[in-house]
Amino acid sequence: MSSDDIRLEDLPLREDLRGRSPYGAPQLDVPVRLNTNENPYPPPRALVDDVTEAVREVAAGLHRYPDRDAIALRQDLAAYLSGATGVPLTERNLWAANGSNEVLQQILQAFGGPGRSALGFEPSYSMHPIIAAGTRTDWVATPRRDDFTLDTGAAAKIVAERGPDVVFVTSPNNPTGGSIPFDELEPVLRAAPGIVVVDEAYAEFSSQRSAVELIETYPAQLIVSRTMSKAFAFAGGRLGYLAAAPAVIDALQLVRLPYHLSLLTQAAARAALRHADETLATVAKLAAERERVVEGLLGLGFTPVPSDANFILFGRFADAKASWQAYVDNGVLIRDVGIEGHLRVTVGTPEENDAFLAASKEVPR
Amino acid sequence: MSSDDIRLEDLPLREDLRGRSPYGAPQLDVPVRLNTNENPYPPPRALVDDVTEAVREVAAGLHRYPDRDAIALRQDLAAYLSGATGVPLTERNLWAANGSNEVLQQILQAFGGPGRSALGFEPSYSMHPIIAAGTRTDWVATPRRDDFTLDTGAAAKIVAERGPDVVFVTSPNNPTGGSIPFDELEPVLRAAPGIVVVDEAYAEFSSQRSAVELIETYPAQLIVSRTMSKAFAFAGGRLGYLAAAPAVIDALQLVRLPYHLSLLTQAAARAALRHADETLATVAKLAAERERVVEGLLGLGFTPVPSDANFILFGRFADAKASWQAYVDNGVLIRDVGIEGHLRVTVGTPEENDAFLAASKEVPR
Repeated sequence: MSSDDIRLEDLPLREDLRGRSPYGAPQLDVPVRLNTNENPYPPPRALVDDVTEAVREVAAGLHRYPDRDAIALRQDLAAYLSGATGVPLTERNLWAANGSNEVLQQILQAFGGPGRSALGFEPSYSMHPIIAAGTRTDWVATPRRDDFTLDTGAAAKIVAERGPDVVFVTSPNNPTGGSIPFDELEPVLRAAPGIVVVDEAYAEFSSQRSAVELIETYPAQLIVSRTMSKAFAFAGGRLGYLAAAPAVIDALQLVRLPYHLSLLTQAAARAALRHADETLATVAKLAAERERVVEGLLGLGFTPVPSDANFILFGRFADAKASWQAYVDNGVLIRDVGIEGHLRVTVGTPEENDAFLAASKEVPR
Repeated sequence: MSSDDIRLEDLPLREDLRGRSPYGAPQLDVPVRLNTNENPYPPPRALVDDVTEAVREVAAGLHRYPDRDAIALRQDLAAYLSGATGVPLTERNLWAANGSNEVLQQILQAFGGPGRSALGFEPSYSMHPIIAAGTRTDWVATPRRDDFTLDTGAAAKIVAERGPDVVFVTSPNNPTGGSIPFDELEPVLRAAPGIVVVDEAYAEFSSQRSAVELIETYPAQLIVSRTMSKAFAFAGGRLGYLAAAPAVIDALQLVRLPYHLSLLTQAAARAALRHADETLATVAKLAAERERVVEGLLGLGFTPVPSDANFILFGRFADAKASWQAYVDNGVLIRDVGIEGHLRVTVGTPEENDAFLAASKEVPR
């Protein structure tokens, strides 16, 4: 049998992976791409120049391993997050990896794993259970309300009952868009016997106070994860990070692969952080566009779910999969997130949003 | 208790991580660094320019996620490896990640894990058992001969007896330096019930034929891992890769984190591959220097272990740890790899090697 004839079934694959498909939205060549919650505004010229210059400076040292602890980058992330939240933080509170997925994987490698469990409130970010599976952490799925909000009183109760080692709270929640009011986080933290990860990937789009403010109160429990992929317009640079007590960072260093962040990633992310003000200026534009798209959808008789993020979950469709394809046929790529009767659209530029709203008139309901 | 007062012991860390220390050689500021098997020759100016230009071109698209499948990079890696080994390969045979450590972690996530085992011949690359632990794969350590060569007949026998899900064969072996003769690989492959990973991180320094030639014969078993960190002088870029049957790549896509390779990593690695001829021209220089250092060590009464790689394990020291410190005190950073009576030195530039040999006269035996 030649190597081309071998199939997945012929390999000694782990039993729990058999029959699975790789995660990921279709990467289709469609004029308007509103499917992965990217920031539609390209990085400003000054950022491109600065990233390029930063790479030129470090490239002469590419033959050497990078700073394994990425201290300078973590200092810069601490400065940004301190400024954004008003909470004093240093590099000892910050950790970074290749996208927030790797951050979350490291958290579950350290605090989850076989014989341990993680709990999430679904529908939520679909990578949470996938990363749990990848680290062999049992996944406990608990439902949100029918309107996709989180009943934090009930949530605290179920956390106390089930006693998971790790709880994921996503705020704003992907793919539904709503934030958890700051005051409602503490009951969940008080109920949790172990780690609580507040996934704030979309925090810059929300006016809620950040869970970072609670780290001092719950230092042995709380981890707040963030990303530069969304508001920062740095999805291609792959930089996720988290804030927590210094001991949590020590724990993650026990499971991280050495030199996980390249010289180029560290340099480019630092350059991008120097342009945070310009990049984050797009957030207000996107929030205004989000309201315009919501109005447009309402005007067309759709039911958008209230969103604090840069995307909108909306319905209803008799056959969401067929309607998703109709959007593609109309040149607009949005996301079928597997919620019956609903699709998710990322807020784009005004022109992209116009194209989306125009397509929305054409697709079958 | 404030976040600064919390200690690792106060966290709900996985039991098997308690008491551990993070992996990694000391990153000390010493004039001559010969401790992590880097290529001592900085990338040529043309490579730096090309990496910089490649980054400038893609940086305007940093707000978008990268090609999740890294097709163009995998095509380039296939072209390089086909040329180096004479084996026809396409992107369907190639997989890449952030350093070969991530490649190895993905292999164990797919084919190892709880209830499964991986076997290695020690002393060998110390990340193999660490990544096994990180993926909760049982580690079966089996010894090499006293002279650090591998008795492949005995190896095949123990593989058949123990029946591990994954076998690691490192050639050239780190930290001892010797290659496994090409003809001796097949008995191990025939004996193994599952996957055999031939770790060829240092293959460019060796004149042995590559295990890549055996993929067609053992398509459901053989994975050959490689890295751009060593001969390619690209340690800072973090690019590891492997060659295998296409179905193996399909399996790894079930466990990889989506978008694990950044736009910058993909672009920079492709640029570096365009300069492979220049970069790999350093291999002959380093091989010549290796022989000179071996002669120097012999002249000083040391016992270097025969090496096919860009480093030399040598002894004997009454107290390797103390002698390691004496090298540092003499401005030369080498590696204490935990083998009694021995230290490992990376082959550097002629000047660095002179400094190492000079220090070797000063240190206690």
